[in-house]
This record gives sequence, C-alpha cells and structure tokens, in this order.
Amino acid sequence: MDTLVDAIDYEEASDEVREIYDDIMETRGIEFVPNFWRTIAHNPSLLRRTWVSLKEVMSPGALDTRTKEMLAIAVSVTNGCEYCIRSHTAAARKIGMTDDMLGELMEVVGMFNETNSLADGYRVEPDSVFFRKPKG
Amino acid sequence: MDTLVDAIDYEEASDEVREIYDDIMETRGIEFVPNFWRTIAHNPSLLRRTWVSLKEVMSPGALDTRTKEMLAIAVSVTNGCEYCIRSHTAAARKIGMTDDMLGELMEVVGMFNETNSLADGYRVEPDSVFFRKPKG
Amino acid sequence: MDTLVDAIDYEEASDEVREIYDDIMETRGIEFVPNFWRTIAHNPSLLRRTWVSLKEVMSPGALDTRTKEMLAIAVSVTNGCEYCIRSHTAAARKIGMTDDMLGELMEVVGMFNETNSLADGYRVEPDSVFFRKPKG
Amino acid sequence: MDTLVDAIDYEEASDEVREIYDDIMETRGIEFVPNFWRTIAHNPSLLRRTWVSLKEVMSPGALDTRTKEMLAIAVSVTNGCEYCIRSHTAAARKIGMTDDMLGELMEVVGMFNETNSLADGYRVEPDSVFFRKPKG
Amino acid sequence: MDTLVDAIDYEEASDEVREIYDDIMETRGIEFVPNFWRTIAHNPSLLRRTWVSLKEVMSPGALDTRTKEMLAIAVSVTNGCEYCIRSHTAAARKIGMTDDMLGELMEVVGMFNETNSLADGYRVEPDSVFFRKPKG
Amino acid sequence: MDTLVDAIDYEEASDEVREIYDDIMETRGIEFVPNFWRTIAHNPSLLRRTWVSLKEVMSPGALDTRTKEMLAIAVSVTNGCEYCIRSHTAAARKIGMTDDMLGELMEVVGMFNETNSLADGYRVEPDSVFFRKPKG
Repeated sequence: MDTLVDAIDYEEASDEVREIYDDIMETRGIEFVPNFWRTIAHNPSLLRRTWVSLKEVMSPGALDTRTKEMLAIAVSVTNGCEYCIRSHTAAARKIGMTDDMLGELMEVVGMFNETNSLADGYRVEPDSVFFRKPKG
Repeated sequence: MDTLVDAIDYEEASDEVREIYDDIMETRGIEFVPNFWRTIAHNPSLLRRTWVSLKEVMSPGALDTRTKEMLAIAVSVTNGCEYCIRSHTAAARKIGMTDDMLGELMEVVGMFNETNSLADGYRVEPDSVFFRKPKG
Repeated sequence: MDTLVDAIDYEEASDEVREIYDDIMETRGIEFVPNFWRTIAHNPSLLRRTWVSLKEVMSPGALDTRTKEMLAIAVSVTNGCEYCIRSHTAAARKIGMTDDMLGELMEVVGMFNETNSLADGYRVEPDSVFFRKPKG
Repeated sequence: MDTLVDAIDYEEASDEVREIYDDIMETRGIEFVPNFWRTIAHNPSLLRRTWVSLKEVMSPGALDTRTKEMLAIAVSVTNGCEYCIRSHTAAARKIGMTDDMLGELMEVVGMFNETNSLADGYRVEPDSVFFRKPKG
Repeated sequence: MDTLVDAIDYEEASDEVREIYDDIMETRGIEFVPNFWRTIAHNPSLLRRTWVSLKEVMSPGALDTRTKEMLAIAVSVTNGCEYCIRSHTAAARKIGMTDDMLGELMEVVGMFNETNSLADGYRVEPDSVFFRKPKG
Repeated sequence: MDTLVDAIDYEEASDEVREIYDDIMETRGIEFVPNFWRTIAHNPSLLRRTWVSLKEVMSPGALDTRTKEMLAIAVSVTNGCEYCIRSHTAAARKIGMTDDMLGELMEVVGMFNETNSLADGYRVEPDSVFFRKPKG
C-alpha cells in the first residue's frame, strides 16, 4: 500500500471505529469502507469528526445533495485532488449527474480559474455596487 | 486607481470595445461596466474572448444559471479571489441565492478544502470502484 | 504598519544587514530599500540567503532578465501575491516590458489556469509521446 | 482508461469535432490528437472554445510563441498540473527551449514560489513607488 | 462592513449562538468574539461544528498547542489567508512564540514552497526507500 | 525514468556536483542520493543553492529540526506535493515523529485548510486587536 499510514480494515478496527464504518456504509448505500475513511481511522477522533461533519454538511437543506456534490467536485478540481474528484464524481453520478452536467460543471470551473487569475493578476478593485447587501 | 493598467472608460473606448461594453450591460441588466471588464479592455482580444466565453458558459443548459453562479463562487472562494467572490455573490443573489443557500455553499466549500488536504496529504489511493464508468 | 514584524530601517540596521541593503539599492538602481527586504531583515540569515539567491537567479544566462521577470509575474499572478505582482511588474516595465506584452502575458496566464484545471479535473493521462526526451 | 469521461476517437467523432481535430493536428504539426482534446470533446462547445482561444493566445504577437510556452510551463509548475507541464515542455523544446533554459525557468519558478509565500506570509505592504504607472 | 454577510453581535444572537460565543471567549481567554466567529454565525450549525472541531483539534495531545498554532500559521501562509495568519500569529505569540521562532517558521515555509514547486515541476519520482513504513 | 530531465548519477557527475552529493549523504546519514537532488543537478547552481539553503534552514535554532520537518510536511500537504510529503515524512519519522503526532499534524492541516477558505470566502476583516505587536 502507498498511503502514509496503514489503512485499518474492518476486522481489526476498534468498536468505536467499526461503528462509524457501519454508519458510512449504511448512509452511502455501499458495501465497502472507502480507502479515505480506512486511512484517517488511524486517528479515531479525526475519523469521527470528519464523518459526522461530512454527513451533516451533505444532507439536503437549502441546497439539495446533488448540488452539494457538484460544489464538492468544483472545489476538488480547483485543488487538483484526485481522490476527491473520483469519489464525488461517482457519488454525484449515482444521484443523477449526467455527463452533460459534468461537462458544464467543468466549463464553469475552467472559466473561473481563468477569470480568477485575471482579476487577481490585474489587482482589479471590486466595484462599490457589489458591497451593497440585500435587505433581508 | 490601483489596478496594474488603466481601466478604459466607455467614453474613450474604441468602437469594438464599446460594442462589448454594451452587450455586457444589456446581458447583465446593469447600467455600468464593471471594473473587471474595463481593466482587461486594455487588451481588446482578451476582453472579447473572455466575455464571449463567459456569456456562453453561464447560459442555462444542463445546469441552470444559478447553479453555475454558485459553482463560480465555490471556485473563487477556493482560490481566494476577492473580486470574483464579490461579483458572483452579487450576481447569484440577484437570481435567488438566499443567505441560507450561501451558508450551505460555504459549508461544503470549507468541508472539501479540508478533506482534499487530508486525502492528498495521506496519499490515499482512489478505490477501484470509483473507476467504473456508467454505461450511457 | 501592518506587517507581522517591524521592518528594519537602514539607520537601525546592523552592519551585516546594512551591507545587503546597499547591495540591493545598487544592484536594482533604486534609492530606497523595498518593504519586502526591510521586513525579512528581522531574520538576517533569511535576508542574506534570499537576496543572494534572487540576485543570482535573476542574472542573465540562457534566459535574459526581462523574460525572467515575466516568468516571475506569471508565478505571482497564479499565486495571487499582490506584493510580488506589483514589484515585478514595476521591475519588468523598467527594462522594457510594454503594456501589450503585459496584456499577452496575462492572456497566457489566464488561459493556462483554465486548461490546468480542465486537465487535472478530467484526470487526463499524459500522451506517451510527451515522455520522449530529446537527445542532447 | 482513467479519465473521468471517455475520450472521443477521431473515427467516432462528429463532423464538428473532427474539423477541430484536423485543425489541432495541422496547427501543431503532429499526427495524433492529444488526450486532452479527445477528453474535453465530450463537451463539443468546450472543445471548440478552448481550442480557438488557445490557438489565438499562443500565436506570436508582442511576445513570441516560445516565451509564451515558457510562461505556460511556469503557470503549470506552480499549479502542479502534470499533463500541462509535460505537454508544454514538449512543445517548447520543439521550438528551441534547451535544457539550460528549462533549468533557469525552474530556478525562477522555485524562487518566486518562495518569495511569494514570504511576502504574503509577512503581509508586506507594496511600496508606494510600485503604484506609479509609466506615462505612455 | 465588508464581509459577505452581516456579522452577528452578541446582543442579537440566539441562545444557541450565545452559548458558543461564551465558550470561545472563555477558552481563548479573550473578552470579545472575533469577527470570524461572528460571521459564520449566520449559519449556526457551521459555527457550532467549526468551533467544536477547532477546540478539539487545538488541544494538547501528542503535539503541544504552540506547535499546533505554528502548523496553523504554516498552512495559512501557504494559502495566503490574511485573517488566519494574523489571528494565529497573535494566538501563538500569546503562548510563547518569539519573533525568532516566527522568523525560522517563515524560512521553512518559504523554503518548502520553493522545493515543492521544483519537485512537482520536474515530476520527480519518490525514492522507493520512502515507501517503507516503520514497524510499530 | 519519468522526470522532465535526466537525473545525474554519482558516477557521471562533475566534481562540483559530486561534492554536494557527498555532503547530502553525510548530512542526512543516508547511502544514496535522493531523486530530487539528482534531478535538479542538471542545473548545478540550482543544486548548490538549494542544498546549501536547505541545510541551513533545517538546522536547529529557535526551533528544533523535528518541528521544522513537521512544518515542512504541513506546507507540502497544503500544496499536495507527493515527493515532499513522502521524503519529509520519512525524515521526520527518523527523528522521532510518531504516527500519533502525524495524525494530529494532519488534523491541524485539514482544519486550517477549511477555516482558511471560510475566512477568505466570507472576506472576514481581521480584528483590530490582532494588529497590536508585542513589545520586545
């Protein structure tokens, strides 16, 4: 294995870790524990905090889960994180993201990586009108 | 002004540039030309290419424009580009993004900047199941 | 002042630091010590190492100094570092970079921030032909 | 194949896509369509826009094409994009970039990734003299 | 105010938010609620999750809190996040980080931003010996 | 080999390069020259400058070497540089970094990549109290 620390298999996991593994598989509707979770399990409190947070953050609220998964892909592409790109593309496809949607997502991500560097590069001042907040 | 090059005002712009300025104001439903466009106008072909691309990319397709604006915010937050964060937050609010939606967007962006660094840091291998493409 | 540590003025500098300040002003043909150098001077070995390296790296060799300054701008724009963008744009202009050259530089930087995110996002494999090295 | 979407071969491409493939091969003087273009072809308008822009941006103007290719490498190294590093190193070598030039390019890129983080880290204020624009 | 959303003052906060504000001030030994927490409070679950995690993560364990604060500065400098650089420099100084320690921290951060770009730029393969894990 | 330029083996190295190779092996207590150094050796002045700087920067001073190696890992994880993560994790383990320490390091790095993006995303103003420098 190539990870920095040994992944912890279900069989060798502590009860605390195994409980989280069970919750991951049930929540995601999968029958294996992905490498990411088995790796960070070497620090059980990191595993717990990260899973509990992720589960809460990705639940539907003002935004639906598919939109959230697509935002996750946009962040992961911008950071160039292969694991996250692959796992969240798989997750988003499972709940309806088509190749056309992925294609448009990539267009937007590419476009804004370009304009971000232009705006930052030229040191463009935000227009004053952008500072007005809507009344709510 | 603090930008690297002088912004080009409508009055002093060439016909070619002025035509793009008109299209920007009409398409966006605004009555001023934002600093970003007035700055990159010092290179007219950059202005033209960027505007034509942006207009095409942000049009509704498989994804609606509001989702695209939110993806744009996610990229801009990840890159820390102030101008783009402010301008696209303003644009997204105009077409219905509420503060609750922005709050959840930020949660997702924060969460994945964290997990991206964990997955990259531990050098986690993508699970083989993520490589299977759906039949289409 | 807003920097994290107090900048060290010429008058209060040690002999070691003052000697480097003199070399900076002479080499650059300026009559003040830029804030960057006055700030890192709080760690004299950092000041010395950084200045000696920078002076060596920016000297003409297989590439001329203006091309090197433009590469420095490209890196600084990609990282969004305001100080470095401003100081190296000033330096490059002094040795002949025109606004047209800056405009094309920005176009290239913007373009590749876009294509970098697309290539990384889609996880495109490098074509095998790119691995062949020229015989030298 | 490991990309997120299936690459589109010349044989199965639509007429619109095939025309762009032909232009890529002719412009670049190569006899294959690189993986990057075959991948983004799953979104034909992304392919068209990106190719047309890239072709225009990389043409000689105030800067020659080799300098532009070297700027592209500087951006790609800073972003850590393997595909772009490899493809543009190959392209730059083809038009005369020697290993000595690459070595100096890397020195500059390394140096400014260091000084960028120091200037940003210490929150150094740009010197007021950097804000004066040249007349002309 | 310039933040994207209105900060929530103690007086107008809900009981749930106020309880977290109290815990922040007590834990940190300060008599005000920093802007960061008052801003993300517009999404109360984001406030709660982030504070609870941060408190847990920064507690002494295998690493002492000062080392953790310095790691936090290293990350924030690499990302160029002004708020985090300033707040964690202040926090680290409070528990004993001297200017000499900050100076060496910056040297290391600068150095590795340089070598990271060189290693990534040249596409250097990790030496096989680095893959051997220690027996535990 | 996959690097952009050919690595230079000890046997074929010039006397100047060989001397640095010897110093690397002696200083690090290893019996091989890591790929990183053999690669940048194609530009001997880059090799010399980088090694001399690294040796000086990583020496114990106000911070001990192990803390410096952990800061190096934090930077490398944030930048996603595989070579540097692997080599400095190996180096830090050699001088006493345990898996528990690595686990807490990763927690801190993950946490601050999250809060950095939130602080930058919401454009939070630094609290004025953070600007007061300690008297020294």
